[in-house]
Amino acid sequence: MMNKNLVRQFEKIAGAGNVMGEEADRHAYAYDSAVLDSVVPALVVRPDTIEQLGRIVALCNENGTPLTVRGSGTNLSGGTIPTGTDAVVVVTNGLARILEINPQDLYAVVEPGVITAQFAAAAAEQGLFYPPDPGSQAVSTLGGNVAENAGGLRGLKYGVTKDYVMGMEFFDVNGEIVKSGSRTVKCATGFNLSDLMVGSEGLLGVFARIILKLIPPPKASRAMTAVFASVEQASEAVAAIIADRIVPCTLEFLDNFTIRTVEDFRHAGLPVDAEALLLIEVDGHPAEVSEDAEKIQEICRKNGAVQVRAAKNEAEKELIWQARRDALPALARLKPTTVLEDATVPRSRIPDMVKKIKEIGRIYNLDIGTFGHAGDGNLHPTILTDRRDHKEFARVEKAIDDIFDAALAMGGTLSGEHGIGLAKRKYMEKETSKGTILYSRKLKQTFDPKNILNPGKMIGD
Amino acid sequence: MMNKNLVRQFEKIAGAGNVMGEEADRHAYAYDSAVLDSVVPALVVRPDTIEQLGRIVALCNENGTPLTVRGSGTNLSGGTIPTGTDAVVVVTNGLARILEINPQDLYAVVEPGVITAQFAAAAAEQGLFYPPDPGSQAVSTLGGNVAENAGGLRGLKYGVTKDYVMGMEFFDVNGEIVKSGSRTVKCATGFNLSDLMVGSEGLLGVFARIILKLIPPPKASRAMTAVFASVEQASEAVAAIIADRIVPCTLEFLDNFTIRTVEDFRHAGLPVDAEALLLIEVDGHPAEVSEDAEKIQEICRKNGAVQVRAAKNEAEKELIWQARRDALPALARLKPTTVLEDATVPRSRIPDMVKKIKEIGRIYNLDIGTFGHAGDGNLHPTILTDRRDHKEFARVEKAIDDIFDAALAMGGTLSGEHGIGLAKRKYMEKETSKGTILYSRKLKQTFDPKNILNPGKMIGD
Repeated sequence: MMNKNLVRQFEKIAGAGNVMGEEADRHAYAYDSAVLDSVVPALVVRPDTIEQLGRIVALCNENGTPLTVRGSGTNLSGGTIPTGTDAVVVVTNGLARILEINPQDLYAVVEPGVITAQFAAAAAEQGLFYPPDPGSQAVSTLGGNVAENAGGLRGLKYGVTKDYVMGMEFFDVNGEIVKSGSRTVKCATGFNLSDLMVGSEGLLGVFARIILKLIPPPKASRAMTAVFASVEQASEAVAAIIADRIVPCTLEFLDNFTIRTVEDFRHAGLPVDAEALLLIEVDGHPAEVSEDAEKIQEICRKNGAVQVRAAKNEAEKELIWQARRDALPALARLKPTTVLEDATVPRSRIPDMVKKIKEIGRIYNLDIGTFGHAGDGNLHPTILTDRRDHKEFARVEKAIDDIFDAALAMGGTLSGEHGIGLAKRKYMEKETSKGTILYSRKLKQTFDPKNILNPGKMIGD
Repeated sequence: MMNKNLVRQFEKIAGAGNVMGEEADRHAYAYDSAVLDSVVPALVVRPDTIEQLGRIVALCNENGTPLTVRGSGTNLSGGTIPTGTDAVVVVTNGLARILEINPQDLYAVVEPGVITAQFAAAAAEQGLFYPPDPGSQAVSTLGGNVAENAGGLRGLKYGVTKDYVMGMEFFDVNGEIVKSGSRTVKCATGFNLSDLMVGSEGLLGVFARIILKLIPPPKASRAMTAVFASVEQASEAVAAIIADRIVPCTLEFLDNFTIRTVEDFRHAGLPVDAEALLLIEVDGHPAEVSEDAEKIQEICRKNGAVQVRAAKNEAEKELIWQARRDALPALARLKPTTVLEDATVPRSRIPDMVKKIKEIGRIYNLDIGTFGHAGDGNLHPTILTDRRDHKEFARVEKAIDDIFDAALAMGGTLSGEHGIGLAKRKYMEKETSKGTILYSRKLKQTFDPKNILNPGKMIGD
């Protein structure tokens, strides 16, 4: 609970109806999508305007009150879990205006609380395309996407959120507006602070308005599947596709465990004996799409695919992507707790990584289903467990350690798209260096001397 | 001159042959390509290895010696002019190794002194494409490109340097290695420090190794020209091309003054009466290229082009781009001093901006030729003058002020691709905000407490 005087000041800024101090309300904002302990905040504030947001930040700083900004709480690394029982959670869903979509100059300006999929749909209505498509896009917010540098299925060809942030205005910890970047494609004015904000996990500032790049949509697309008797063959097919200078917009992988689980769940006729299933989509000009789809099917066959199928129509294409979307919910059904990791390796190391994950599963006697973005090396080993089983969960934690060690040894990264947050902060130095942590902590200390902006996340205290 | 003891320490690190203290040597590194006063440094050091580079940074910091890192000195905003007669210039041309080109995982790792065009050629040899093509690419270095976030002709479709930096290792001011980013397309680990380094103009750290993204090259391309009787019509044609969801890889503009000057220089048959000439290239799949080229020609005609021509072969295409490349040298021939600006506006504001620039030329009685990247709104108004004519140069400075004011009033930016450096620092606050300057200065102070890394540039002291 927060002292009443301070609560009243928040109410004065945001209106009493937007300040939630009841226990039930506070409990609703105590956790996110990561498998971590929840922390009940002292207060939840939901500003209606950007101006209110700035004043809330300033008030928190004046009072040394820790502040976690949260969109829809789909974070998988604990980035939006409150940092203490004295903390304020600021919810951005009242800041959900699309301020501008400019089809002439191919950009949009949004508030941080806009839902990703709704924004993509609004852009599509104007004949434009916003490619980043994180798994949670139906509910996630653009502010959250930017704070975590969210990825998605289209990373290989279209890049990730940071590739679409042209600029932004954000509040520093004093509630002062800082501007960086521009509505123009080119901008070499000042430090690249807007890209520094991308992936900063709420530690350095609070987003006010974000300028996002839009592009013309592809004119055609085609989806296909290829079934392999070994992960190595599937991976060789992926390498051969890239070597042929084809960049699919989506190139997804499901391992045998995941295939069987999805099939049990949906009964869509997936090949339950296959060791690997690739789901591939190409897009672009119709002629290119048709040529590339042909070539990919041929490459898959040459690399030992036992079955290759192209979707003949939208319904068949939808079926293919349904299988991919089913992966997580189907796996999650098996056990009470689902730990979804996102260790990432250079694409050529995928077979080694999948092998290693299987081995780790065996060593610790754990069920691990692996699926993910074969095109960009971003795998999602998904450990099925029960958090209440402390013995097993201790093995899970060891398995995660081993998975990260393996990814780093292969020149990969701890996190492709889920962020560091609380979940992976202890591994940060392993991937980077002591110098990096010190540099990062200096950065944090400079811009947040009272350590109130999502404190303790990513780089510790 | 520097005290001998310190000189000996630099010699110990880099070898006596790589430390240049003679006046003639120092004079050679006193200026860059900006129209600004030269400053003769105290010493020039040319490390052979990255390890030496780190030790040089640490030594400078220990002694409070200002340090400007310089590639080929093609900087147009004074970013590589030494900051005082006590300064050390570190030349990176001994650090010019391409450490890795990885065609499987589509990235390369380079040292900062690699020449841009040589790198692009090395990538092309492996069947890969590095799109950023700043005007100085034949001599500019990748380190310089990253420090300035260099653009080029392909910005509209392919983006600028920052879109190709996947990660880097850099030295902090103490000579400690900081790592950020990854060899993987996706990386959400830690602060996005590598993108913070992009465009940081040497103020925050010294680049050691840079990881760059490579992409498959387009399979075909076609170039064409369109001649217009008014800038408005040319600009409407550009808008109509984008509205038709075509993104040319290059979309360049020359105004009448530039056309006439280039024609005088080369006698290539340019339309000297035209108010605007568009040079356009599309690339991609052959079918797409052919369709888009047809459509663009039609759009240009519909928007009043008096002449539209497509290159029939490589030689004709080469001729088109020769005209664009001639723009700057042809203009530069007219008067002793060429001030090349790069104010940038949203593409839809180009006619207003070109009009405004003409008006400013009239008001101050100056010859201004304008050419540039119509596709991304990045114009290069080029003022022809004689710096020794103090009266005229005072008018030039006023004209530049007015050009920037106009660009900002149209929602544009001070610099599309040339950076801020010394030349534009006084305008920084106008584009951004007081808060931005303070935030940026804090950043500088945190990472460079003795203010030795290219001090005084961009944000002042």
